[in-house]
Amino acid sequence: MCVAEQAVGRQSIQFQNPVSIISGASIVGKKEGEGPLGEAFDMVGEDPMFGTNSWEEAESTLQKETAGLAIAKAGLQKWQIRMIYAGDLLAQSVASSFGIADYQIPVYGLYGACSTMGEALSLGAMAVAGGYAQYVLSITSSHFGSAEKEFRFPLSYGNQRPLSATWTVTGSGACVLGRSGGQAQIAGLTTGKIVDYGLKDSMNMGACMAPAACDTIYQNFMDFNRLPEDYDQIVTGDLGKIGQNILWDLLLEKGYDIRKCHTDCGLEIYDGEKQDTHAGGSGCGCAASVFVSYVLPKIRSGEWKRVLFVPTGALLSKVTFNEGKSVPGIAHGVIVEQKEEGGQS
Amino acid sequence: MCVAEQAVGRQSIQFQNPVSIISGASIVGKKEGEGPLGEAFDMVGEDPMFGTNSWEEAESTLQKETAGLAIAKAGLQKWQIRMIYAGDLLAQSVASSFGIADYQIPVYGLYGACSTMGEALSLGAMAVAGGYAQYVLSITSSHFGSAEKEFRFPLSYGNQRPLSATWTVTGSGACVLGRSGGQAQIAGLTTGKIVDYGLKDSMNMGACMAPAACDTIYQNFMDFNRLPEDYDQIVTGDLGKIGQNILWDLLLEKGYDIRKCHTDCGLEIYDGEKQDTHAGGSGCGCAASVFVSYVLPKIRSGEWKRVLFVPTGALLSKVTFNEGKSVPGIAHGVIVEQKEEGGQS
Repeated sequence: MCVAEQAVGRQSIQFQNPVSIISGASIVGKKEGEGPLGEAFDMVGEDPMFGTNSWEEAESTLQKETAGLAIAKAGLQKWQIRMIYAGDLLAQSVASSFGIADYQIPVYGLYGACSTMGEALSLGAMAVAGGYAQYVLSITSSHFGSAEKEFRFPLSYGNQRPLSATWTVTGSGACVLGRSGGQAQIAGLTTGKIVDYGLKDSMNMGACMAPAACDTIYQNFMDFNRLPEDYDQIVTGDLGKIGQNILWDLLLEKGYDIRKCHTDCGLEIYDGEKQDTHAGGSGCGCAASVFVSYVLPKIRSGEWKRVLFVPTGALLSKVTFNEGKSVPGIAHGVIVEQKEEGGQS
Repeated sequence: MCVAEQAVGRQSIQFQNPVSIISGASIVGKKEGEGPLGEAFDMVGEDPMFGTNSWEEAESTLQKETAGLAIAKAGLQKWQIRMIYAGDLLAQSVASSFGIADYQIPVYGLYGACSTMGEALSLGAMAVAGGYAQYVLSITSSHFGSAEKEFRFPLSYGNQRPLSATWTVTGSGACVLGRSGGQAQIAGLTTGKIVDYGLKDSMNMGACMAPAACDTIYQNFMDFNRLPEDYDQIVTGDLGKIGQNILWDLLLEKGYDIRKCHTDCGLEIYDGEKQDTHAGGSGCGCAASVFVSYVLPKIRSGEWKRVLFVPTGALLSKVTFNEGKSVPGIAHGVIVEQKEEGGQS
């Protein structure tokens, strides 16, 4: 019998054998390619339709190409990937279903709004560390056109956006996880709870998600008995400017100052002033593509030795918004570390 | 170091230590309560709105009450549940998000259409067997009113339904999984692939899903080196009459005759002729509530010693249907066995 206890604290997991991040791939749209991380993405698509006839198919193509690239960069064939953990923002997660069907790999469909990359990395790492798979793929995507249609208005309506709104990233990020290889590893997780402060403004999702990010980060500190300075960086998903400030305030109230070691994927991906993206970037593809193109390289190079990656999600739908419901948030924490030479941390 | 290899064959998992199904709970609507399994459900709600003002809130309430009941039947407090694996059919899985938020338990949101209970039991069992959690809750729901609104027409439109259509079950089923306790256990899994035969008729979902069910069942036979007679029963999710016949034919073509040991949750839940439900029941709540009320009791009593439970899902959305896309299917296999006295199987 061999069941190692890997649960720590109230809602965290510490892997006895950390899980390797073997490869990462990211493909984004034109606007993202023009942002500060432009050079760091694997590919930038000049055509927002990615050669298809609908926003939905465009997003599926984005996800399909990114998956293929991540598998190739890991030096693997698609049949070697045991399971895919995939999700997106569309109703019934159709971008993923249609995007990865052709690979004929067993798949678990996920929904955690923009926190889904955290969920995909978490469940994928649990599968590898549990002995259920040698290699898995974790992937998410979003597309500005499909998301505006899904949650707001058709693009041609030309509606105005308040300054608190975020800009949905056209992009996809994917990682191949496995038992060995690569220079980064997932050492632990803090699974998020649904946190609802009763906010109802879907044009200010940073404010809706900040309490969930605070909850997960605080719980991570408790469960692992850590302080902010134990992380070289805490990287949230897509809180944007307003959400970041709220997160800082909420954690200060609890006695933790993360201001010196915090950034947000939604703030890194665009030059907000030049690109008119208002509060920042958002979407399943935001945290995923920034993780792959910005966070992973800094871990591999040793600039950051340990990062707490916390993708954040706003759990709303058109229907709940129209029915006047609040926008609860969720955030999943993933501890990513540089691998030490020649062995396990 | 302790990583037991638990992957078998191409796409299956065999748990070194099977995972206990400690409790199950089911709550359904009035129509389901009037069906053949009426007496077997834990509760039947007479009010289709479950005391709320919208179909969505009704479904959330259904899921919330079912979760609470399953936890209580396991003799546990909610804080003892380490993680919830939850999903439903609505856009952005809002029935689950709003249903279980109050429990303040870490949660992974899932989407596998009507196969979601298979996904929830699979990922939940993997978490327990991997040492990540002592107790988890797997839960799904569907509601006739919210599903018609989401996928078809508002109820008040009074549209006609073809005979190949299924009737979405108003119901929720939940199981508490853990390391010990209960009389049933999950011994293995076969994770489903997305299978697309190009069918486009969302009013004949049985036909769309049957190829996926065939694929998963066939792969289960291969991976575990089993024959149909190694199972006392193979129980698919919601293929209904038409889908059942297609599944039988597809498996016969591969040389396997499951006709003597196959049933479908969608055929068990309603009396199709008396209740005018056409091809059968469907929805995330169909497989979940029938599993808890019909399959689990037969395993506990020993009438069935080993069952292959295969919830089936049709991966469509309103948008993909309107854009003329096909309806791919997915099915996740869960091997459920009676526990042998005094120990592990």
